[in-house]
Amino acid sequence: MVKFSDRVEQLKGSEIRELLKLTQQPDIISFAGGLPAKELFPVEGMKAAAMAVMSESGQEAMQYSTTDGIDSLRQKIVDRMKAKNGIDSSIENILITNGSQQGLDFSGRVFLNEGDVVLMESPSYLGAINAFKINCPKFIEVPTDNNGMIMEELEKIIQTTENVKMIYVIPDFQNPTGRTWPLERRKKFMEIINKYEIPTIEDNPYGELRFEGENMPSLKSLDTKGLVVFLGTFSKILAPGYRLGWVCANPEILAKYNFVKQGADLQPSTVSQLEVDKFMDMYNLDEHVAKIKEVYGHRRDVMLNAMKREFPEGIEYTHPDGGLFTWVVLPEYMNAREVAVKCIEEKVAYVPGGSFFPNGGHENTFRMNYSCMPDDKIEQGIASLGKVLKSFMK
Amino acid sequence: MVKFSDRVEQLKGSEIRELLKLTQQPDIISFAGGLPAKELFPVEGMKAAAMAVMSESGQEAMQYSTTDGIDSLRQKIVDRMKAKNGIDSSIENILITNGSQQGLDFSGRVFLNEGDVVLMESPSYLGAINAFKINCPKFIEVPTDNNGMIMEELEKIIQTTENVKMIYVIPDFQNPTGRTWPLERRKKFMEIINKYEIPTIEDNPYGELRFEGENMPSLKSLDTKGLVVFLGTFSKILAPGYRLGWVCANPEILAKYNFVKQGADLQPSTVSQLEVDKFMDMYNLDEHVAKIKEVYGHRRDVMLNAMKREFPEGIEYTHPDGGLFTWVVLPEYMNAREVAVKCIEEKVAYVPGGSFFPNGGHENTFRMNYSCMPDDKIEQGIASLGKVLKSFMK
Repeated sequence: MVKFSDRVEQLKGSEIRELLKLTQQPDIISFAGGLPAKELFPVEGMKAAAMAVMSESGQEAMQYSTTDGIDSLRQKIVDRMKAKNGIDSSIENILITNGSQQGLDFSGRVFLNEGDVVLMESPSYLGAINAFKINCPKFIEVPTDNNGMIMEELEKIIQTTENVKMIYVIPDFQNPTGRTWPLERRKKFMEIINKYEIPTIEDNPYGELRFEGENMPSLKSLDTKGLVVFLGTFSKILAPGYRLGWVCANPEILAKYNFVKQGADLQPSTVSQLEVDKFMDMYNLDEHVAKIKEVYGHRRDVMLNAMKREFPEGIEYTHPDGGLFTWVVLPEYMNAREVAVKCIEEKVAYVPGGSFFPNGGHENTFRMNYSCMPDDKIEQGIASLGKVLKSFMK
Repeated sequence: MVKFSDRVEQLKGSEIRELLKLTQQPDIISFAGGLPAKELFPVEGMKAAAMAVMSESGQEAMQYSTTDGIDSLRQKIVDRMKAKNGIDSSIENILITNGSQQGLDFSGRVFLNEGDVVLMESPSYLGAINAFKINCPKFIEVPTDNNGMIMEELEKIIQTTENVKMIYVIPDFQNPTGRTWPLERRKKFMEIINKYEIPTIEDNPYGELRFEGENMPSLKSLDTKGLVVFLGTFSKILAPGYRLGWVCANPEILAKYNFVKQGADLQPSTVSQLEVDKFMDMYNLDEHVAKIKEVYGHRRDVMLNAMKREFPEGIEYTHPDGGLFTWVVLPEYMNAREVAVKCIEEKVAYVPGGSFFPNGGHENTFRMNYSCMPDDKIEQGIASLGKVLKSFMK
C-alpha cells in the first residue's frame, strides 16, 4: 500500500481553488477569486514584447538560464522597489520566483521546522497558511483591529512564546481584510522584531494599488538589520499568467532561497522573464498601473455603495484604501459557509472567512473581491447577496 | 540572530549550477551542462504560436488558471504518452509542472518523511538527489551495471531494509550514465515493486531521443497497480525555457501532488501552456524531435570517436543509445575534481561524477554532455581533455 508523508496527509485543497472551479460557470457572479480584471491586461503590448524577444533573442529565451533570474529584470525590480517601496537594494538581493506564492512556499521551507511557531495577522492570507502548513508549524494569530496588527499584542505573544521562528504580515491592503497599517505601527513593528531578532516575511502584492491616502513606507525600507524578506509580484500590476514574482532579502538569507529554488524547479521561465523585461523597456508600466487603480478604485466605490444600500443593518465591512478586497463580518449567529450555499443557488459567490484563520473559528465572516467584475454585475451581485443575507437575519 | 530550518542548513548549491555559471564564459568548451542545442529550437514556430495565442486568447493567457493545467495541453500529453511510451491514461492522471524538476521536488514532499529510505540507481541524477535531500531521507544506492539497475541487488536491499518509501529510477538513457534498462529488467522491476508495493518515480526526460536500437516500454506502461509516477518534460523535445513538464499518476496519488502544487506556486504558467499547446496544433512535434535525434546522434558519434582517438588506455566510457550523456570512469588513483581544475585552465569543462552518488565516493568518474556543442568544438575539447588526462596517468 502506498504510504504518503505525514506532511501531505494533513493537507487539503484550497477552498478558493475549488471555488474558482465552480465559479468558472459563466452565469455566476463571482466575488470569490482574487482575479485581476482581464480586460485591462496590456495584451497588445505583451504581444509586441513577445515578438521582439523571439526576433531578437529567441534561442536565448527558449534555453535554460540561471536560478536567480535574468540580471536585466532583477535590475528593473530593484529600481521599481526603490521608487515604489523606498527599498535600497541591488540585484544580489533579488531572486525571481513563480509568483509570490512560491516566495511563501520557500519562506516556510527556509525557516520552519516541525512544531516551530509562525505568527500571522488574524485573519491572514489563505494561500500563505496552506504554503506554511506543509512544514507542520504551530500557527499563532496576532489580534488585529481596523489598523492591522496590534503591536502590544504582538510583543506580548513574543515574550510568552518559545520558538517563534517567523512572522508573516501583509501591511498594505491586506488579503483578506483590505486593511493597511499606519506608519506608527510599522515603526513599532520594526522596533519589536529588531529587539527579538525574528525574521519577517512582508508580503506586498497590492502595495502599488492605492486609491486614496498616502503611500506608507514598506517594512523592508525600515529594516536596518536584514530581518525582513520582502515578496513582490507582477501578478497584480501586470498579469498573473506569466507567474513572475520576486524575493528581496539579505544575501545570507537569499542564498538559502536560491538553494531551495534549485531543487524546486531549477529556475524561473526564461521566456516569461525576457518578455516582461522587454515590455517594461517598450512601455510605461506606471501608466498601466494608473489605469488599474482608477478602475479598481471605482469598482470598490460601486461595491461599497451597493453594500450600504442592499445589506441589512448589523453587517460590517471594511473600507479599503487600495487592493482587491473588502471583508464582511456578519452577526455571530450567522454562518458564512451556510449562507454561501444559498448564495451559489442565487448565482453569486464569495469566500467564507473561516479559512483565513489558521486555527479556525470566525465562521461569521467572508471575503469579497471587487477587481474583476463590471459595474452592473457588481450591482446585481450585491443585490442578490443582500437578499440572501436578509433571509438569514434574525 | 536568524535561525534557518534544519533542512536548509544541510543544503548546498548544485555543483552543476555553479559550473554552468563558470562555463558561460564564451571561450570555454563545456561538456558540463545538460543543455539542449539552442540552434535547433523552433524559434519561428514558437513565435508564430505566441502571436496566435496573444491574438486569439490574450486575456485568457495572461489570467490565472487551474492548478492541474489546461485541459487541451493535458490531452496532448495523454496522446503523446500513449504513442511514445505505451501509457494508457486520461487528463485526470496529468498535472502540469515547472519542468520535471518540480515533479521531483513534489515526489519527495509527497512520499518522504525524515529518515525514510529512498532507493536510487548508483549513480543517479544530481538534481533528484538535491530535490529529495530537503526532506532529510536516507539514500540507499542500488548497484548498477551496463544495463542499469541490477534487480537481484534491488530485491536484496528491499528485503533487508526498513522504511523503503520510494524508488527513483531513470530507465532510459540515464543521467548521468546514458544507460538503458533492457526489457527483462523492466519486467523484473515491476514484479518486485508489485510484490512489495513501493511507489516508484520513473523519470523520463530523454526517452524520445533514441538514436539506435528498439524503443523500450516505459515502466508506467507495465504498471498494473498504480504504483508508478511518471515524470515527463518538454525541456528536451521542445525547449526548457518555458519550464513545462508533467506528472502522470493514479488519481489518488495525483491529488497529493495537486495539493502540493497549490501551496508551491498555485499553477503552471498559463501563457507558456497555451503557447506550447498552440505550437503542437500548428506544427508537427515529431518532425522536430526527429531533427534533434539526428543531430545528437551524430554528435555522440563525434564525441565517442574522438574519445577513442584522444583518451589514454585504461579509461572507460559508456556507449549511450540515446539521450545527452556519456559517463567516464578513470583509473581509481585519479580524482576527477582535481582533473577538472586543470581542464578549466585548458578551457574545457565536465561535471565530476562524485556528486551523482548520494553517499559520496567514486571520485574517479565524470559526466560528459554531447548535445550542445558543434562538431569542431567537440573534437577540439576532447583533444584538450585527452591531453590533460594523459598528464594525470601513471
